[in-house]
Amino acid sequence: MRSRFTFLFRRKLKLQIITTSLTGGLVAGYIFSKYKPIVRAEADISVKVGERISTLPTYSMTEVAKHTTAEKGYWLAYKDGVYDITSYVENHPGGKMVLRSAGKALEACWKIFTMHDMDHVYEILEEYRIGNLPPGEREVNQREQEKITDLFQYDPERLNIKENFFVRSKRPFNAETKPSVLVSSFITPVEQFFVRNHMHVPFVNINEYKLEIGNGKSTHSLSFDDLTEKYQSHTITSTLACSGNRRGAMNNDEQGTIRGAPWYVGAIGNARWTGVRLRDVLQSLGLDKEGKYVQFYGLDCETPKRCYGGSIPIEKALSDDVLIAYEMNNESLTRDHGYPLRIIVPGSIGARSVKWVNRIVVSDKESDSPWQIFDYKLLPTSVKQPQKSDYDAAPAIQDLNVNSAICYPSSTEDGNKVKILSVQPNHNDIKNKKLTIKGYALSGGGKQIQNVQVSLDHGKTWLQAELEQLAEPHMRAWAWTLWTYHIPFDDLPSKPFDIICRATDTNANSQPESPVGIWNVLGHMNNAWHKITLQIDEKCLKKGS
Amino acid sequence: MRSRFTFLFRRKLKLQIITTSLTGGLVAGYIFSKYKPIVRAEADISVKVGERISTLPTYSMTEVAKHTTAEKGYWLAYKDGVYDITSYVENHPGGKMVLRSAGKALEACWKIFTMHDMDHVYEILEEYRIGNLPPGEREVNQREQEKITDLFQYDPERLNIKENFFVRSKRPFNAETKPSVLVSSFITPVEQFFVRNHMHVPFVNINEYKLEIGNGKSTHSLSFDDLTEKYQSHTITSTLACSGNRRGAMNNDEQGTIRGAPWYVGAIGNARWTGVRLRDVLQSLGLDKEGKYVQFYGLDCETPKRCYGGSIPIEKALSDDVLIAYEMNNESLTRDHGYPLRIIVPGSIGARSVKWVNRIVVSDKESDSPWQIFDYKLLPTSVKQPQKSDYDAAPAIQDLNVNSAICYPSSTEDGNKVKILSVQPNHNDIKNKKLTIKGYALSGGGKQIQNVQVSLDHGKTWLQAELEQLAEPHMRAWAWTLWTYHIPFDDLPSKPFDIICRATDTNANSQPESPVGIWNVLGHMNNAWHKITLQIDEKCLKKGS
Repeated sequence: MRSRFTFLFRRKLKLQIITTSLTGGLVAGYIFSKYKPIVRAEADISVKVGERISTLPTYSMTEVAKHTTAEKGYWLAYKDGVYDITSYVENHPGGKMVLRSAGKALEACWKIFTMHDMDHVYEILEEYRIGNLPPGEREVNQREQEKITDLFQYDPERLNIKENFFVRSKRPFNAETKPSVLVSSFITPVEQFFVRNHMHVPFVNINEYKLEIGNGKSTHSLSFDDLTEKYQSHTITSTLACSGNRRGAMNNDEQGTIRGAPWYVGAIGNARWTGVRLRDVLQSLGLDKEGKYVQFYGLDCETPKRCYGGSIPIEKALSDDVLIAYEMNNESLTRDHGYPLRIIVPGSIGARSVKWVNRIVVSDKESDSPWQIFDYKLLPTSVKQPQKSDYDAAPAIQDLNVNSAICYPSSTEDGNKVKILSVQPNHNDIKNKKLTIKGYALSGGGKQIQNVQVSLDHGKTWLQAELEQLAEPHMRAWAWTLWTYHIPFDDLPSKPFDIICRATDTNANSQPESPVGIWNVLGHMNNAWHKITLQIDEKCLKKGS
Repeated sequence: MRSRFTFLFRRKLKLQIITTSLTGGLVAGYIFSKYKPIVRAEADISVKVGERISTLPTYSMTEVAKHTTAEKGYWLAYKDGVYDITSYVENHPGGKMVLRSAGKALEACWKIFTMHDMDHVYEILEEYRIGNLPPGEREVNQREQEKITDLFQYDPERLNIKENFFVRSKRPFNAETKPSVLVSSFITPVEQFFVRNHMHVPFVNINEYKLEIGNGKSTHSLSFDDLTEKYQSHTITSTLACSGNRRGAMNNDEQGTIRGAPWYVGAIGNARWTGVRLRDVLQSLGLDKEGKYVQFYGLDCETPKRCYGGSIPIEKALSDDVLIAYEMNNESLTRDHGYPLRIIVPGSIGARSVKWVNRIVVSDKESDSPWQIFDYKLLPTSVKQPQKSDYDAAPAIQDLNVNSAICYPSSTEDGNKVKILSVQPNHNDIKNKKLTIKGYALSGGGKQIQNVQVSLDHGKTWLQAELEQLAEPHMRAWAWTLWTYHIPFDDLPSKPFDIICRATDTNANSQPESPVGIWNVLGHMNNAWHKITLQIDEKCLKKGS
């Protein structure tokens, strides 16, 4: 990969694809901890980045360590290089979390969070080069870093990855389901369900596991058995979708570069979740009478005090279907999906369905975790480089919006990169002289899908797709709706043509034509019409006629 | 008005504007009751419609009265004419309710519900002429009808109608606020608040008034004083919007004629509502533990057993802000707005905020009123003439969708009819060399407005409007947001140009570009981009430069 690297110092580098901010605030935390990095085989680019440049001045690590404030500037070291990243901080896709590396050496973080291991990231770093470390300090840094343990080594073994997923990052593991896999069943099998991790996967000893539930004054501690034996079980079918699903299609040169993983249409899945009602637990502990929010925290921690978290309004927490879940599709949760317990907040963005949950707090305040107060917010289109005040002014996203996507036919390659999809209609389609189009549609907040429409003329006229099922009941419709449309071969041109889909929900919200008006720098909630461009194998069309 | 009438018998008459279905199921009910019609001065058209045609056969009222089924056909009489409307029933904008006139004479209904008094309605009727009544029967019918009392004569006196409203029908009274009036204040004054009546305005003696609350097994009866003295008062600021707001812009020749009043952008208003929480009342009566829906019925009745009604899910009914309201903007409700008590369901379509409420029922079922099971439903785009099964398959609309409209500048004429609006910028705008654009934006279900954007290039680029306020708190944001945008005169062409607005809410739902994909035969929930075309007075532009 790196052999294609061209070493350019561009001051205003435009990045077309950004995959570096998956972890948001978690990137830098490992530097302070004692974990051991995995040392990768080095490739050709790394011999240039961070190597000694004789024309530059020398700064010791002691000097570097003094530069950890806005006044003095933010410095850091990488190999033999010293960098002043002060002017870069605002542009860091993971936000100000890069500052946790200020005054320190960078390799440990990057070798654990391997998503930084991309040409353009090295390119950017070297732009900020100001000097060299004295001889020997690089080696001291390396010995320090060897003490750091790589918790990712305990991540679960994952099978059939290439068959089912497009992997967006390995550490933390983030992978979306391939489109044609998505629509092959209403219930997504666990091994095909998208994985969105913010961190390593916690390793839980179920005998030691405790779920703490409190309100800041008193705290109750429940074992796994306490929870599953004391409370009635409840099962719902609910789609989980990442708020960044379809982010890839929101990137465009005119409006600016979007932060976060460029998900195509597969950061979504639909499963049966079994657990106990959060309401039942809160009521039994007398915690349902006060507070405005319920906060959740997981075992996926950056530091012992800084764990993944989120919160939901108390009204939602006390509603019928919010679960502390222990089963997914009638089996125990897998480690990637939150074993032993996770929250399921149906109708809301996946970020609120906290995995590996071990702490629940009823409070008058939202969670102060960065994932609640920064990452999962919808910033205005006009904000290109968010400041704290932008985040403060924007509410945390809760409910999903109405959305739909075409998933079949699809490519085995990343859909973001496929300009024209060559299609050989399958046997059935040839027999019926019709091309089958399939996809999913869903809305948020329990709204049912009202209809899905398909257009072959860029939205001038719309054709009704057949809905394979509707989520029930309609005010608590948590599951997606799969849909099908058959286009007669006679209506298909031999040259490439566009198919667009759009859904409307039961309160008549529908999808906008373009992402231009809904563009936001964090790339959340893209629900513009989904379009694919097809080129049908002409021989197949003839066989059918 | 009628002097322009051209008497054409067209079999496939296309109606461009339909104002006949405001009352839905209520149109025909009066025929069975004892109310006295108001006799209007007759105009030239009426001497033709219903007058004797010597070439046609004669049928007695006894014969007409036999035709009240699908098998025998549906007949009715008007003046001396006999009509077979069997093939028209499906096309009646008010649905099958027209059948309640079958076998009877029509004048009583039409003279009370004067919205039928339009050229095209007489035109349509005469298309179905099959015969004459025998001499003398017309006079018998008229004497019968004189016994009917016109309850509309007790409607309240309404002042400054022309100044504040476009009146869509006088009986029942339906009037929308003029756009420039709408955006002149965050709180809409009562006398400027749109009126949406399904019937005459009930006349209530407060000393006799009782509110019945039950669950089908037991019923509690509360006086006005019981309610207001026993329970704590609660005030919210909430927008009410008719689900048909902006219906006028959904009409188009290609997709078919839409039923219902062609509201422009003014079937909406924002007020402070004070009352008691529905939850508190249900809890105190032990009615909060069962049932899936809460039904509301008003005193505006077609027959004693058929009153306006609607229902909402129990979760919504038990939430913080659903009110049994007695004040609007700190004054007692006026008769047009539901005196003495009305329901306020913030975030939902206005139809659920039942006025003149006198009965509340907790039930496992939705209300079986026609306004719950027929009228206020979102039918699929493909349905042009709804059958019962279409209604059965469609859920009742509850929450509003995201919407916005440009209200200033605006015409004093009905906005639906204004193609190009000539604008003379006001003194301030000339001084500032900027044209001021103002409007409203809102969403449903408590979602806050995230942003409002304006485009001067048909949606290619979007400019951020200034939000004058945001509804609070953001998960229970019930009020609209007013917004402003200033366009520098230098950016304004001297020829007519379009301005478009669109809003996005905090769960990232936004407005679709066109109503084509959201078209529905009942014309609900139009939230396409709102566009106006302006022509600026060139002299003003020069003065400013």
